[in-house]
Amino acid sequence: MSSSVEISLPLGFRWGATTAGIKASGKPDVAIAVADTPAIAAAMFTSNQFVAAPILIGQRHLKATEHKMRAVLVNAGNANCATGDPGLEHCRQSCAAMGDAIGCVFDEVFPSSTGIIGVPLPIDKLLAGIPNAVATLGNTPDHAAAFSTAIMTTDTKPKVASESFEIDDKRVSIWGCCKGAGMIGPKLANAAPHATMLVYLFTDIVATAGELQRLLHDSVEKSFNAISVDGDMSTNDTVLLLASGASGVALDKNRTNEFDMALQRVCDSLAYQVVDDGEGVTHVVTLALTGAASDEAAATMAKSIANSPLCKTAWSSGDPNWGRLLAAAGKAGVPFDPATVTIAIGGLEVFAKGVRSSAWDETATHDRMSQRHYTIAIDFGMGSGACKFVTCDLTHEYVSINADYST
Amino acid sequence: MSSSVEISLPLGFRWGATTAGIKASGKPDVAIAVADTPAIAAAMFTSNQFVAAPILIGQRHLKATEHKMRAVLVNAGNANCATGDPGLEHCRQSCAAMGDAIGCVFDEVFPSSTGIIGVPLPIDKLLAGIPNAVATLGNTPDHAAAFSTAIMTTDTKPKVASESFEIDDKRVSIWGCCKGAGMIGPKLANAAPHATMLVYLFTDIVATAGELQRLLHDSVEKSFNAISVDGDMSTNDTVLLLASGASGVALDKNRTNEFDMALQRVCDSLAYQVVDDGEGVTHVVTLALTGAASDEAAATMAKSIANSPLCKTAWSSGDPNWGRLLAAAGKAGVPFDPATVTIAIGGLEVFAKGVRSSAWDETATHDRMSQRHYTIAIDFGMGSGACKFVTCDLTHEYVSINADYST
Repeated sequence: MSSSVEISLPLGFRWGATTAGIKASGKPDVAIAVADTPAIAAAMFTSNQFVAAPILIGQRHLKATEHKMRAVLVNAGNANCATGDPGLEHCRQSCAAMGDAIGCVFDEVFPSSTGIIGVPLPIDKLLAGIPNAVATLGNTPDHAAAFSTAIMTTDTKPKVASESFEIDDKRVSIWGCCKGAGMIGPKLANAAPHATMLVYLFTDIVATAGELQRLLHDSVEKSFNAISVDGDMSTNDTVLLLASGASGVALDKNRTNEFDMALQRVCDSLAYQVVDDGEGVTHVVTLALTGAASDEAAATMAKSIANSPLCKTAWSSGDPNWGRLLAAAGKAGVPFDPATVTIAIGGLEVFAKGVRSSAWDETATHDRMSQRHYTIAIDFGMGSGACKFVTCDLTHEYVSINADYST
Repeated sequence: MSSSVEISLPLGFRWGATTAGIKASGKPDVAIAVADTPAIAAAMFTSNQFVAAPILIGQRHLKATEHKMRAVLVNAGNANCATGDPGLEHCRQSCAAMGDAIGCVFDEVFPSSTGIIGVPLPIDKLLAGIPNAVATLGNTPDHAAAFSTAIMTTDTKPKVASESFEIDDKRVSIWGCCKGAGMIGPKLANAAPHATMLVYLFTDIVATAGELQRLLHDSVEKSFNAISVDGDMSTNDTVLLLASGASGVALDKNRTNEFDMALQRVCDSLAYQVVDDGEGVTHVVTLALTGAASDEAAATMAKSIANSPLCKTAWSSGDPNWGRLLAAAGKAGVPFDPATVTIAIGGLEVFAKGVRSSAWDETATHDRMSQRHYTIAIDFGMGSGACKFVTCDLTHEYVSINADYST
């Protein structure tokens, strides 16, 4: 993966950001991206029943333009959710203002909002900020970095990833960024709307909307849909992939595979960064489930373990409590026989064939679990179903962050 | 409900307890109950796939005796779970010893264990304790209280409830007790096995096993299956109802209704006490969901809210964050339209028809949420589906209790 010094940004895009006063902190809170010509768009949204205004508007705009977008307009600090008809109207107004500022139709603007729920969007601040953001547009790594910083809320750092490869002396690049630290239990769907995890992926490959949507779906299933911090699905989760076509390289049989792998690496990296920067996280745990009856069964058990408060609190102290792992897997409703189960934590076997492993070494296992990153491998000894899922511990700090309230 | 001074214990039972050294704390850890003649038994067990030895043995004993039990043998401090074949053998041995001590067949003994998972049951201590426990048997409130105390693990206090009523100058009594403070997200089923919430209900009514099982199932659905502390289902959850018949009153059309209501009150009280004594709990929240498309839809959304870390942390600080309630309901996969939803917290309307209520009073709502017990009422405005679910907040203390680990 490219480091920031050798970053190769996709051609055909400019990024910008400004401070509009929507965040109480006074930090940058409006991020925009503009494509020189209409970019082909693929998107996935939260499957929550309760969604924010920009999710509804964004979906309509994709349909109206047949997935061709000129701009992305993101505000952080206010989710524009549960804001009723005024919220929809505010979202429309902001898209129209963005369209005026860069010279496109309002429905070629893809809107996103993240922040507090249920408080009216400060539309005047956002409208005043748009021309200021447009004035900052540029195509350097600094401009892209400004975009990735302005979308943050409780994130402690920006999350970016990039990949590039050459075909016939032409370079194809993908650059992506995302935000999200709490309310992370995404279940992104192609059609259904919903988002507090926001992901923006830019590439200069030539592709149709159908090709992009299929590739995005597969990459998201194995990355953003396979992580959790607290298991709470947001009302605004969005993943957007824009393709400018400026590389001049079109997808074909071989190139699709290379592009697909690069896209997957970008998504995997961003998804891992979301968990690593999760609220109060001190340990990132990769659950590697194998030997299940099906991939679906493995995923169901992985989610049950990932969202178990007893497992998550045990991880916070490096407690090799494999009983909680089995109890959490067992409550998922998927049949298995403990007598065929093997569990290894950080490579050390702790449970085998229905009982504590003969290799059980509590101190050594605790030491492995004291590291920030480790894997818990569970083999169910039943079939070939597997799932990789990235999650984290539950700490005092998580409680403090989310219980923070003062009237 | 009877207070402890006017408690009317069911006839035909004796209770006892002793300290066998299974708990590291040195507190009483073996509880026994004995029926003078075989009592009719109904039981429900965890639906976890991963279950403890006594669950498997208890189910076999019920089948072998056609639901007639002479004794209950409970040890606290060790769950005898993930202990393999030796665990099953230990459980059998302890039932045989209990049978010898009171003069019944081993399979007329109903075993339970609660405590640490994966550590071999200290069978010698348990076997030595049984005759000592039998020596304490008696039928006074103090004896019943000793039983209710010895089954505790992380509970801070015993949980008991009782009811009695008269029919034709004959008194019918129900007395029950339970334990459980963490790993509380029960899903008890008639046939499937599983338990760290242990519930023992004793009555002197005359009933068949079929009648008892049906009445128990209905009462448990509305009580123990409608609570959660952390949403983690245990490997040992058990609810046992024993009927001695010693009152001489048999169930018939009218008496069944009266008995059913009394049993429901006992179960409701015990279930509420479990949440109230939940690990680290500072607020007990009753979710009253109405107007859903079906009872099942209401229950699904109630559980999603009850187990949402973001809702639970907000409750810990009295934060009237209704956005989190809607987001948690919305992630359950049950369709609803926010425009027809009304939410009241502690009787104060906070959300109505898609937006914050015009009656919104943040300070007053925060004050209501500062009380230990309050109700969150959510009406979905769709149908007649309803659910009452009792849950609690997630606090630093919960994390401390469950992260406590020292090698």
